[in-house]
Amino acid sequence: MRTIDINCDMGESYGPWKMGHDAEVMPFITSANVACGGHAGDPNVMAKTVSLAQQFGVSVGAHPGYPDLPGFGRRALALTPDELQNMLLSQLGSLSAIAHSQAVELNHIKPHGALYNLACVDIVTARAVVSAVKAFSTALPIYCLPGSELEEEAKKQGILAVPEGFVDRAYEPNGLLADRNTPDAVANDPEWAAKQALQLAMGSVQARNGVTIQLRVDTLCIHGDTPGAPLFAKTVSDALTKAGFALAAPRHG
Amino acid sequence: MRTIDINCDMGESYGPWKMGHDAEVMPFITSANVACGGHAGDPNVMAKTVSLAQQFGVSVGAHPGYPDLPGFGRRALALTPDELQNMLLSQLGSLSAIAHSQAVELNHIKPHGALYNLACVDIVTARAVVSAVKAFSTALPIYCLPGSELEEEAKKQGILAVPEGFVDRAYEPNGLLADRNTPDAVANDPEWAAKQALQLAMGSVQARNGVTIQLRVDTLCIHGDTPGAPLFAKTVSDALTKAGFALAAPRHG
Amino acid sequence: MRTIDINCDMGESYGPWKMGHDAEVMPFITSANVACGGHAGDPNVMAKTVSLAQQFGVSVGAHPGYPDLPGFGRRALALTPDELQNMLLSQLGSLSAIAHSQAVELNHIKPHGALYNLACVDIVTARAVVSAVKAFSTALPIYCLPGSELEEEAKKQGILAVPEGFVDRAYEPNGLLADRNTPDAVANDPEWAAKQALQLAMGSVQARNGVTIQLRVDTLCIHGDTPGAPLFAKTVSDALTKAGFALAAPRHG
Amino acid sequence: MRTIDINCDMGESYGPWKMGHDAEVMPFITSANVACGGHAGDPNVMAKTVSLAQQFGVSVGAHPGYPDLPGFGRRALALTPDELQNMLLSQLGSLSAIAHSQAVELNHIKPHGALYNLACVDIVTARAVVSAVKAFSTALPIYCLPGSELEEEAKKQGILAVPEGFVDRAYEPNGLLADRNTPDAVANDPEWAAKQALQLAMGSVQARNGVTIQLRVDTLCIHGDTPGAPLFAKTVSDALTKAGFALAAPRHG
Repeated sequence: MRTIDINCDMGESYGPWKMGHDAEVMPFITSANVACGGHAGDPNVMAKTVSLAQQFGVSVGAHPGYPDLPGFGRRALALTPDELQNMLLSQLGSLSAIAHSQAVELNHIKPHGALYNLACVDIVTARAVVSAVKAFSTALPIYCLPGSELEEEAKKQGILAVPEGFVDRAYEPNGLLADRNTPDAVANDPEWAAKQALQLAMGSVQARNGVTIQLRVDTLCIHGDTPGAPLFAKTVSDALTKAGFALAAPRHG
Repeated sequence: MRTIDINCDMGESYGPWKMGHDAEVMPFITSANVACGGHAGDPNVMAKTVSLAQQFGVSVGAHPGYPDLPGFGRRALALTPDELQNMLLSQLGSLSAIAHSQAVELNHIKPHGALYNLACVDIVTARAVVSAVKAFSTALPIYCLPGSELEEEAKKQGILAVPEGFVDRAYEPNGLLADRNTPDAVANDPEWAAKQALQLAMGSVQARNGVTIQLRVDTLCIHGDTPGAPLFAKTVSDALTKAGFALAAPRHG
Repeated sequence: MRTIDINCDMGESYGPWKMGHDAEVMPFITSANVACGGHAGDPNVMAKTVSLAQQFGVSVGAHPGYPDLPGFGRRALALTPDELQNMLLSQLGSLSAIAHSQAVELNHIKPHGALYNLACVDIVTARAVVSAVKAFSTALPIYCLPGSELEEEAKKQGILAVPEGFVDRAYEPNGLLADRNTPDAVANDPEWAAKQALQLAMGSVQARNGVTIQLRVDTLCIHGDTPGAPLFAKTVSDALTKAGFALAAPRHG
Repeated sequence: MRTIDINCDMGESYGPWKMGHDAEVMPFITSANVACGGHAGDPNVMAKTVSLAQQFGVSVGAHPGYPDLPGFGRRALALTPDELQNMLLSQLGSLSAIAHSQAVELNHIKPHGALYNLACVDIVTARAVVSAVKAFSTALPIYCLPGSELEEEAKKQGILAVPEGFVDRAYEPNGLLADRNTPDAVANDPEWAAKQALQLAMGSVQARNGVTIQLRVDTLCIHGDTPGAPLFAKTVSDALTKAGFALAAPRHG
C-alpha cells in the first residue's frame, strides 16, 4: 500500500482577523504548514493551530514567509542570504518553541508564497533556505516543487526534499505548473481535483495539452482559504483512501 | 573563591538603528541578556549579538519583552496569561534557534522592562513568565529581584531563580530599589558602582539611609546604553577581579 | 421631521485579511467610522472604504484607535497626552489625505475601542482626544457617550459633541451601557434593535429594570462585524424611515 | 543675488532609537525632509522635528519612503501604482496633520531611498509618485534628480520639480551620480563639498573625468547621518553665504 501525504497551509489568521477554515479542513489532511508570524500568524494563532493539528493527529510543519504582513509574503523582499537565514531561523524557532510546549515537534518545512516561488527558481535563495533549515535541524524535510532549485539544493546539502504536487492546478507538459493567468489554470471542482490527486499519487499527471507525463510526488497540496475548501479536502481525501492509499506525513530523521 | 556574574542587556539595536555599546561592553561581562525581537532586536541583530558574545566567551541569555517596539517594552501590554506565554515562547524560540545555529545554547532568561517590573510584583504575570520558561526548558535559570514574586514563583515551579543586584541603583532599607525619581537613585560614578558591586558580591548593600542590609545576589546588572557604559563595566569588572572574585555566568541544568 | 444618523465602524480589514460586511451594510447607514491604520485598516483599505462610502452617499468619519493591530485597539496603551495627540493627528491626517484625494472631506471623528472607553471616563484621555481633534480641525464633531467626560471636554473646548446611542445594547437606569458580561447585555435580534432605535431616536430608552429614561442621542451605532450585520442594519434603517425619521449625518462647521 | 536651498533628511529616529544630528544640523539648512513614519519616524519624532525646524525657520517637507522600518526604505517593495499612491497619501497626510497642528504647512516633498531611486528611472513609479503628490496638493514642489523620469513626469502633470544637486557625491560626465561603489564616489571632506556646492549653485559641476558640465540645481542635499554632518553642513552653508548666495527654500504655490 502506497503512502501519500496531504498538506495544507494553516494558521494564517492574525490577531483579530480570521483566514481559512482550519478546523473544518484539519480532519482531512495529514500535514499542516503552520504560518510562523512572518507573512501571517502570531504566537496565539500558532498555539491554537498546533493544538488543533495535534487533536486530529496531523503533523505540524513550519510555513515561513517573508516578514511582510500587509503583503502576506506574496512579494519578495530584497534580503541578503544572511538576512534570509536569520529571518527563517527566527520563524522556525518561534513555531518550534510553541509546538514543543505542547509536546509537538516540527515534522517538515514548506516556504510560503514568494519565498517558495523564488527558492524554486533562484539558486541563491534556495541555498539560503536550505542552509537555514539545516542549521535548525538536519532532520526536517523540505516540501518543494519536483525538479526545482530548492529540491536540488536540499539534496546537495543532505536534507530530505519531499516532492509536492498540486491537486487543483493545471500542469504544463514540462511538469511545471501552468501560469495562474492561463484559462483553467486553477480548478474549482473537487471531483477534478480528486481525479488529479489520484493520478499524482500514482506517479503521473495529465498536462494541459492532454499528454500524460510522469511526475513523482510524495505530498499533495490542498488550498485551504477558499469557501469550498473543507469539501475540497474531504473529496480528495476520500478518493485517495478509497483507492487504497494510506494517508500519512513523511517520516523524518 | 566566590563566583559572581555580571549581566548586561545587549542586542537592543533594530534594523538601521543602533543602541548601546555592545562591542565595547562585552569584554567586561559574563552574561548577555539578548533582546528577542519583542521590545528591540531583530533576527540580524540577534545573530550578530550571539556571535559577539561567543567571541568573548560570554553566556547568552534571552531578554524577552512586551512586543512593542515604539514603547521599547517599557509599558505593560494587557495580555492574558496565555497570550503572555505564547509571546514569550515565540521570543525564546527565535533567539534560541539563531543561537543554536551558531552552536550556542541559551543559559538564562531575564524579562525586560515593564515585564520584569510587573513579574516582580504581580503573581499572575510571574506565574505566566515562569510557566513559559518551564515549557521552553526546565534548565533555564531566571534572573530576578531577590524577594520578588518572580523569584518565589520560579522556586515553586522548580526553576532556578538567580537573585540579581544593581550596581548603579540606590537601595531602600527593605532591600528594594529606590524609585528612579528619588534623588541619587541612579549612580553615574563608576567608582561608586564598583564599590556597591563589591558589597553586593559579598552579600550586603548599604541602603539610602546608611544602614547596611544583607542581600544575597548571584548576578550583578550593568546598564549598557549610557555613553560611559564601557568604562562603567570595566571599572566594576576590574574591582571584582582585583578583590578575588571569579567572574562567571551561573551554571544551568 | 426629526433627523437621525446611523453610524457603523467600517474599513477594519487589514492587508489580506477581511473583516466586516462593509459593502452590504453601507446602503443602510449615513456615517461610516473609517479605521485609520492604527487598530485596523491600511492605506488601501482606507481608499476603498472612502470610495464605497461615497458611492452610497455615506459621510466619512475617522475612527482612530490605539496603534496595536494584534490587540485591535481593544487594550489601552500607556501613552502620554502628547503621544496620544501625535498619534491621533497622524491617523486623522492619513485618512483625511486619502479621502481628500477622492474629493471627500472628513465629517466626524469617533474614537475606537479602548480609546473610546477610556476617553469617556478618564479626563486626561478625553482632553488629549479633544485637543488633537481641535488641532486637526475645529469643525469636526466627536461622537461620544452622552454624559461622558469626552462629551463634556468637547463642549469645554468648543467642539461639537454628538451624543450616541447603541441600538443593540441594554442600558442601565443611569443611562450607561450594561456591562457586556451582564445577561442580555447585547441584543442579537434585529427587531429588538429596531425597537430600541426608534425609542432612542425619540429621546428615551427602556433600561434593563424596565424603567424608561430620557436620553437624547443624535446618532445610532450599528455593529458591522457580526454575520447578521447587513440584515440588522436594514431592519433598523427601515424602521426609522418608516417612522418618519430623516436619516442623515450631522452637519459640521 | 541668486537663491539656493540646502535640504537635509531629518526626523529619522524611531521610538527609543536615535538617528542623525537633527538639532546640530538644523541651523545650517533651509529645508528639512521629514520622515513620515514609513521608512523611519513616528508621530512623536515628526512632531519634535517639525518643532525644531520651525524654531530655526527651516521649511518642512515630507520625506516619504517604502513602509519598511527594518529595511529603512532602502529596498523597493513591489507595490502597484494604486498601492503606492495610497501609501504616499497616508504618509503625506500624517506629517501634514502634525505640522498643521503647529501652524506649519508642508513646503515640498522628496521621496526617500529606494523610492527616490526608482522614481528617477522608472516611469510607472514616477507617475504614481507625482499623481499622489498632485492629489494631495498641487502646490507642493517635488525635489528630484535633474533629467530624471520623476522630473519629467512632474512637469507633465503641472507640478513644480526642483532639481537637486549633491554636494558630497562625484558626478559622471552625463550629469548622473557616480555609483556609490566607485572610488571617491562619496566625499568626506567638508571643504571638497563646499567647493562643489558653490559650483552647483552657479550652474555647473566638475565631473569625475575632470570635464565641467552644466547642471542647473535649485536645492543642494546635505547628508545628516554621519558623525561629521554638523560641521559638513556649516562649512557648505558658510561657503554659500560668503559667496553671496541667499539661502532659502523654494517658494511654492
